Amino acid sequence: MARIVAKFGGTSVGDIERIERVADKIKREVERGNEVAVVVSAMSGVTNQLVGYCEAVSPAFDEREYDTVVSSGEQVTSGLLALALHKRGIAARSWQGWQLPIYTSEAHGRARIERIETAEMEKGFKERGEVAVLAGFQGVSFAERIATLGRGGSDTTAVALAAALNADRCDIYTDVDGIYTTDPRVAPKAKRLSKVSYEEMLEMASTGAKVMQTRSVEMAFKRQVPVQVLSSFNEDIGSDMPGTLITKEEEIMEQYVVNGITFTRNDAKVTLQNVPDTPGIAADVFGPLTEANINVDMIVQNVSPDGKTTDMTFTVPRSDLNKTVDALKGAGLSDNTKTADNVSKVSVVGIGMVSHAGVAQTMFQTLADKGINIQVISTSEIKISVLIDEEYTELAVRALHTAYGLDAEDAA
Amino acid sequence: MARIVAKFGGTSVGDIERIERVADKIKREVERGNEVAVVVSAMSGVTNQLVGYCEAVSPAFDEREYDTVVSSGEQVTSGLLALALHKRGIAARSWQGWQLPIYTSEAHGRARIERIETAEMEKGFKERGEVAVLAGFQGVSFAERIATLGRGGSDTTAVALAAALNADRCDIYTDVDGIYTTDPRVAPKAKRLSKVSYEEMLEMASTGAKVMQTRSVEMAFKRQVPVQVLSSFNEDIGSDMPGTLITKEEEIMEQYVVNGITFTRNDAKVTLQNVPDTPGIAADVFGPLTEANINVDMIVQNVSPDGKTTDMTFTVPRSDLNKTVDALKGAGLSDNTKTADNVSKVSVVGIGMVSHAGVAQTMFQTLADKGINIQVISTSEIKISVLIDEEYTELAVRALHTAYGLDAEDAA
Repeated sequence: MARIVAKFGGTSVGDIERIERVADKIKREVERGNEVAVVVSAMSGVTNQLVGYCEAVSPAFDEREYDTVVSSGEQVTSGLLALALHKRGIAARSWQGWQLPIYTSEAHGRARIERIETAEMEKGFKERGEVAVLAGFQGVSFAERIATLGRGGSDTTAVALAAALNADRCDIYTDVDGIYTTDPRVAPKAKRLSKVSYEEMLEMASTGAKVMQTRSVEMAFKRQVPVQVLSSFNEDIGSDMPGTLITKEEEIMEQYVVNGITFTRNDAKVTLQNVPDTPGIAADVFGPLTEANINVDMIVQNVSPDGKTTDMTFTVPRSDLNKTVDALKGAGLSDNTKTADNVSKVSVVGIGMVSHAGVAQTMFQTLADKGINIQVISTSEIKISVLIDEEYTELAVRALHTAYGLDAEDAA
Repeated sequence: MARIVAKFGGTSVGDIERIERVADKIKREVERGNEVAVVVSAMSGVTNQLVGYCEAVSPAFDEREYDTVVSSGEQVTSGLLALALHKRGIAARSWQGWQLPIYTSEAHGRARIERIETAEMEKGFKERGEVAVLAGFQGVSFAERIATLGRGGSDTTAVALAAALNADRCDIYTDVDGIYTTDPRVAPKAKRLSKVSYEEMLEMASTGAKVMQTRSVEMAFKRQVPVQVLSSFNEDIGSDMPGTLITKEEEIMEQYVVNGITFTRNDAKVTLQNVPDTPGIAADVFGPLTEANINVDMIVQNVSPDGKTTDMTFTVPRSDLNKTVDALKGAGLSDNTKTADNVSKVSVVGIGMVSHAGVAQTMFQTLADKGINIQVISTSEIKISVLIDEEYTELAVRALHTAYGLDAEDAA
């Protein structure tokens, strides 16, 4: 007997028929003698509609009321899935965040899970053989208000619940059948990884692979929860199913040097030229941006050639570019600012690169061979990111995918 | 300063624009210095959609999960109205049944309110000048599950809250501007009553006037809550607005003998002929119907002419007629059963009739003059109901409206 947490995203529960299919999967896990907790998202489209309502009423909304409104979608799905399980003769009950409860911080709209009480849910497993169906994406603050965890928060709910229940596995059912070396829509030769380390997944999630919310990977890493990414449209279930296991590095035998090529679009680049190279200058620049709630991504500052002035480059979401320029103006920093809104960030990610020389050089040479100019470089131990002209994104991704030996042999 | 509970039904909060208009109304009540609690329904259509989902998954659903699903509509509206009030600079917060809490019985889908804790809400009035926006139609059972109060339950929430808060008034905003002497769609000369007694409203609600849920009127009567029925589409608010006040009999100065003509359609009549006139026979008949969850309405049994057998007639919702016949068959009572599915019930209601002779005779004569045959008669102290052929419903209603002097003078 195993204890399993299974999470189903919005497209997996997009209509009644799909909810029925999810119930079939759960039934088979129960018939194997497993204890199962299911975490569900809202039916696809519902959350967007609810967010739209809030924005229509008031663009500057109170996050507590926003959370009250948008959390209702998962509540609906949790009840419907419990009903679909009953129809199959499976004991089940829905749980809302406030019922368990899942206590969160007061940071409404992007709350963090502080504590999950699982005693009642475990009593359901043991005493009533009951499947628990938990509404994802939400908990309750200590002030007893509904608090949501931010978009994609159901992944975090699932991983946190798996950690709290000491589950054997957390299965993330989604509309793709695993983690790929890159986006198959861009590089048809992309292949599915059977295993990937937490560290790599974390870099991949934060540099553009959208399969799991970054915070949920972070939590899985910290709490060492084995996570499987699986397709909800496949007939198999759980461990019988091809998918990707996200696990500890030492459990991954065969390791490529580079395991994935990721990319983001919709970035904008801002360069401040000839800023004084004095202590505190970075704080002077980024203070106003933090206050304006702008999420700054890559930050690069080179050594000062003359010891007096330096150039500083950073990226922001393209939609925040105007706000960024305004904030810099407000701080008296706009004189030598150059901006570009046609850049994309391409990254190569892999645990293997820490012990292999020349990984960066392969990247730079590959891009040079295709005539792609690198504007900015930023590296971590297991990742190299470059900023390039957006037009070259697909070309760069495909070339790097081939250069690092990631192409599937049987692909077109 | 007054303390007011205002309830807005589904069409009154049917879209964002209407929610904005509701917020305008509340704002004006606040500007008068009133403490305001608002009870909201789901946006029109939402509850039907959610009920449809439940029925699509499983026609024989677990009421606790059904309640989890269908209660979400009011949650959404409560948050959106709070946001709309914030936009107008009005302090406000949404409340769900489980937050206040509103404790209910365990009878999910048709739960009764057992207790309302108002301490936190009153703290909001006093300490933060806060409008309370409460999701109607729901509370929480002592087992901490969401429980709904049945269709139209938001009226009951509003009246119960008004009683618990000791409110000066409970304003029910709806899509009509008050209680009419009869349905204006059937009798164009129908007029709005400025006041009506609890007792009359109770008879009117249960004999066909659909403005308020019967249970909510019952509760208003028992707790002596002054209720005003108002149109949400009128520019005025509260006590400035033409509407109908439902109040104690002694506060109604001018009293017609009859105050309203109501009717129901979709009834079916069942007659059991020659049943033995022995003790316990009624229990033998209605026991099986109660078990089959059939809501029996009029029951008429005449004195036995020969002291040995008698006829018994009752009405059921037309949609339950087949189920009723089956239940009688199962109880061995089908031999002399006659059914008719083309009847309607027409009632005249008025406190005045207890002290006036000849009220019944006016009804019978009026119907006779129009050639309408009375099939069954049933009376209470303030109501006379007759069962007639459905085809004559409108004709009967208009004739009785005129006969009792209810026609508006200036109407067409």
